[in-house]
Amino acid sequence: MQADLCIHARWVLPMTGDEQILENHSVFIKDGRIVSVLSQEDSASLAQFSATETITLDQHALLPGYINAHGHAAMSLFRGLADDLPLMTWLQEHIWPAEGQWVDADFVHDGTQLAMAEMLKCGTTTFADMYFYSGDSVQAAIDAGMRTVAFTPILDFPTNFAKDADEYISKAMAVHQRYADEPLATIGLGPHAPYTVSDGPLKTITELSKKYQIPVQIHCHETAFEVEQSIELLGINPIKRLANLGFFNERVSCVHMTQLSADDIAIIKESGASIVHCPESNLKLASGFCPAAEILKAGITLALGTDGAASNNDLNLQGEMKTAAMLAKAVANNAAVLPAMQALRVATLGGAEALGIAHETGSIEVGKWADLQAVRLDGLAQTPMYDPASQLVYTDSSRYTEYTWVAGQALMAQGKLTTLDESLLCATATAWQTRIAQNQVN
Amino acid sequence: MQADLCIHARWVLPMTGDEQILENHSVFIKDGRIVSVLSQEDSASLAQFSATETITLDQHALLPGYINAHGHAAMSLFRGLADDLPLMTWLQEHIWPAEGQWVDADFVHDGTQLAMAEMLKCGTTTFADMYFYSGDSVQAAIDAGMRTVAFTPILDFPTNFAKDADEYISKAMAVHQRYADEPLATIGLGPHAPYTVSDGPLKTITELSKKYQIPVQIHCHETAFEVEQSIELLGINPIKRLANLGFFNERVSCVHMTQLSADDIAIIKESGASIVHCPESNLKLASGFCPAAEILKAGITLALGTDGAASNNDLNLQGEMKTAAMLAKAVANNAAVLPAMQALRVATLGGAEALGIAHETGSIEVGKWADLQAVRLDGLAQTPMYDPASQLVYTDSSRYTEYTWVAGQALMAQGKLTTLDESLLCATATAWQTRIAQNQVN
Repeated sequence: MQADLCIHARWVLPMTGDEQILENHSVFIKDGRIVSVLSQEDSASLAQFSATETITLDQHALLPGYINAHGHAAMSLFRGLADDLPLMTWLQEHIWPAEGQWVDADFVHDGTQLAMAEMLKCGTTTFADMYFYSGDSVQAAIDAGMRTVAFTPILDFPTNFAKDADEYISKAMAVHQRYADEPLATIGLGPHAPYTVSDGPLKTITELSKKYQIPVQIHCHETAFEVEQSIELLGINPIKRLANLGFFNERVSCVHMTQLSADDIAIIKESGASIVHCPESNLKLASGFCPAAEILKAGITLALGTDGAASNNDLNLQGEMKTAAMLAKAVANNAAVLPAMQALRVATLGGAEALGIAHETGSIEVGKWADLQAVRLDGLAQTPMYDPASQLVYTDSSRYTEYTWVAGQALMAQGKLTTLDESLLCATATAWQTRIAQNQVN
Repeated sequence: MQADLCIHARWVLPMTGDEQILENHSVFIKDGRIVSVLSQEDSASLAQFSATETITLDQHALLPGYINAHGHAAMSLFRGLADDLPLMTWLQEHIWPAEGQWVDADFVHDGTQLAMAEMLKCGTTTFADMYFYSGDSVQAAIDAGMRTVAFTPILDFPTNFAKDADEYISKAMAVHQRYADEPLATIGLGPHAPYTVSDGPLKTITELSKKYQIPVQIHCHETAFEVEQSIELLGINPIKRLANLGFFNERVSCVHMTQLSADDIAIIKESGASIVHCPESNLKLASGFCPAAEILKAGITLALGTDGAASNNDLNLQGEMKTAAMLAKAVANNAAVLPAMQALRVATLGGAEALGIAHETGSIEVGKWADLQAVRLDGLAQTPMYDPASQLVYTDSSRYTEYTWVAGQALMAQGKLTTLDESLLCATATAWQTRIAQNQVN
C-alpha cells in the first residue's frame, strides 16, 4: 500500500487499553487515517508499505494527541485579568461584565485562534469548547485544521449572543446543522449549569440530544455552594434534580463534579454519563476536590479539561494531567491511584469517550483519524529516562512536544505551527489587551 | 560609578516586601552585588553610572532568582525510577536500596550537576540540598557558580556515607569547616527526620548549630503515619518531642509539615523556625496537605522546595510555586489566599529567610548579591499580559526564562547555560541510567 505518511518512533503508546509501550514501531497514515502500526523488525510486513513522506523520530514518544475535554477557548483573551478571587466574585464582578463588554464574533475568532495555538504546541489535537458565537470558533478550528467538539452555551438569561434559552438553543441547532458533514467538528449542546438553566430548556436539550444524537456538556457540582443553594431552593441537589429530569445518559459529560456523594456517583455510573475533571481550575477557584480515583473505581469515564485560560491560566493539558495524577493520590490518600499510564489514558482515550468521538480518535488504532503528537524524551529535564509514561506525565514534558498531527496533517512540525501564525496571534491578542485593560473598572 | 553590568528591564519585581512592580528600571551590578536600581526616566541619577556590559530586556520581568529551599539534588539520577508508590514503600523498597547500591562521590557530583542545570534553566539561583557526600555537591555548585545551602544528612543508621550519627555529624562539620570562607556555599546540618534520628544526636546538632550559627533542616510531620507512630511509641508527636528537646529556633527549617494542629503552628511560630512547603512531592506521595495559608497567617516564614526529582519528578520551582498558589486556595477553601505576588515572595525572599541568607540574597536590594533571573513575558502562552505577577505564577512562565545570574555572573544567557555543558550532562546521566536500569530488581 502507498501511504501518505510513515512515522518511525522510538516509543509508541497506542493507548488502546492494554497499556503497552511499543518500541521502535512505525505508524502508517493514508487519507488522514491510521492504516498500520508495525514493528521495525517486521520487515516482511513493512515491505508491503511505502510512504510519500517519512519522519524518523529516534528520541520521541508517539502517542495520541491530548483531548482537552472542557474549556472556553476564546477566554484566553482574558488570561490573568482577574486572579485570586472566589468563583462567584470572579464570575459576577469580573468575567460576566467583561464578556458583556467585549464578546462578539471577532473576539471569539481571535481568542479561539490564540487558544488553539497554545493547545497545539502542548500536544492537544481535540478541544471541547463551550462558548458564545460557536459558529465562529468552529470555523476557526476547521480553518486551522484542528478537531473540536463545540458545546454552544445555553442559559436562561441574555448575553451578547442570545436573549433567552430558546434563542440559544435555536442558534446551537443552526450551528449543528451547518457543520453536519464536517469531519473535524462535532456540534453539541452546552447547558451552562444547573443554576443557570431551568427545567424547561433542560428537557428540550435532552429531547434534541436524543433525536439527533448530539453530545451535551454541563458544568455540575462545581462548588459546595452550588449544591447547598439547590438543596435550599429546591430541596434536592443538582445531580438528583437532573436525574429526575432524565437528563443523564451516555451522551452527557459533567464538568467539575467536586462534590460527589456515593449516591451521586451511583447515579452517574448508572446513567452512562461521563465526568470531565479540571483540577487546576478547581484548585485556583477553591471550588473543591474532584474524587478522581473514586470515579475511576466506579467505572465512570473520566476525562480532563483545562477550563478557560481566565481561570487556569494556561491551556496545557499535559500540565493538567500531571496535576490530576498528583492530586488524585493526595485526595484518595493513596499514592498508587491514577498511575502514569492511566493518567495518559484519561488524557487521550478518556477524553474521546467523554465527548462521544472514541470511534474516530483518542488512540492509535487502525481506522481512526491520525490525531497524534510526538514528544522528545531526551531533554535535560527528561534525563535519565527509566519509563516513558512516567516522563510524559510527571515532568514538564510538553515543553518538548515537537509534532502535532490532526487527521494526518502536521499542525506543528519541529516545534513550529503550520496553519497558525504565532507572531500575528500575539500581536492581535496584545491589541485586545490594550483595549480591554484601558476599559477595566477595577 | 563604573559598574560591571547594567540590566535594563521592562518590569522589575524587587520583592522587598512592598509588592511593587517597577516599570522600565535599570539594575546596576558591581563585584557581584547590586549597587543601584534606577528608573529609566531618572536621567540625572543614571548619568552617574556607566557599565562595562549592558543588557536590554524589553519584554522581560527581572526578579530575584527562585530559591529552592529543599531538595536532594543528586537524586535526579533516580528520576522516574519508582513512581506511584506510597512514601514508605517507595523509600524502603526502592530508594534506599538503590542508594545503597549506587550512591558515592561520583554519583553525587554527576547528579548534582544535572540538577543544577535543570534548576538554572527554570530561574533558580540558590538550592538547598540534603544529601550524602555533601562536600562533592558543594564543590559541584561552586564550580558551576551556583549558590547552595548544603544540609549534610544525619541519621542513626549506616549508609554508604557514614556508619552512625557521630560519623555523619563529624563529616558535616568537616564540610562546614572546609567551606567556611566560601561566599557561594553555606553548610548546614540535616537531621533526616524525627523517626530516623534519636534524641542524643538531635541535642548535639542543636548545640553545634548554636555554637557556630549553623542552619539546620529536618523533614518533619511529612505524613499522618509519622505522627501516629511517634504518639504510639513515645506518647507525643514529633513537633512536641523536638520542642521539648529545645530543637526549634530561627536557624531551623522544617520540611513538609502536612500534619499541623493549631498547637503545632503556635510552637513553630513561637520558636522562630520556618517551614518549607513541597506541594508536588506531598501530592504525589499522598503525604497530605500542608496548610500554607494558615502558616502564613500565623506569621511563620514559608518557603518552597521541589524535593528530589525521584519523588516530584522535576526541579522546576516555578511549577512548584504555581502548584502551591493553586493548592493553598483549595486547602483553605478560599480563592483569595496566597495571591500571585505573595507566592512570588515565598519563592524568593521566603526561601532566603528560611535558609538564613536573607541578608545576602532573595530580593533586589542594594548591597545584596545579584542573584537574578529574567523571564520573557511576550510568549504565546503569556499573551495577553494584564499583570506580570499573575503571568509569572499562573502560567508555565519558566519555559520563557532566558537569563539566570548568581552573584552577577550569568549562568544562563539567552537560554544557554554558560558553566555547565547540557549535552555532556545528558550523556553522563544516560550512562548512569543504563547501569542502574540493568541492575533494577523490580
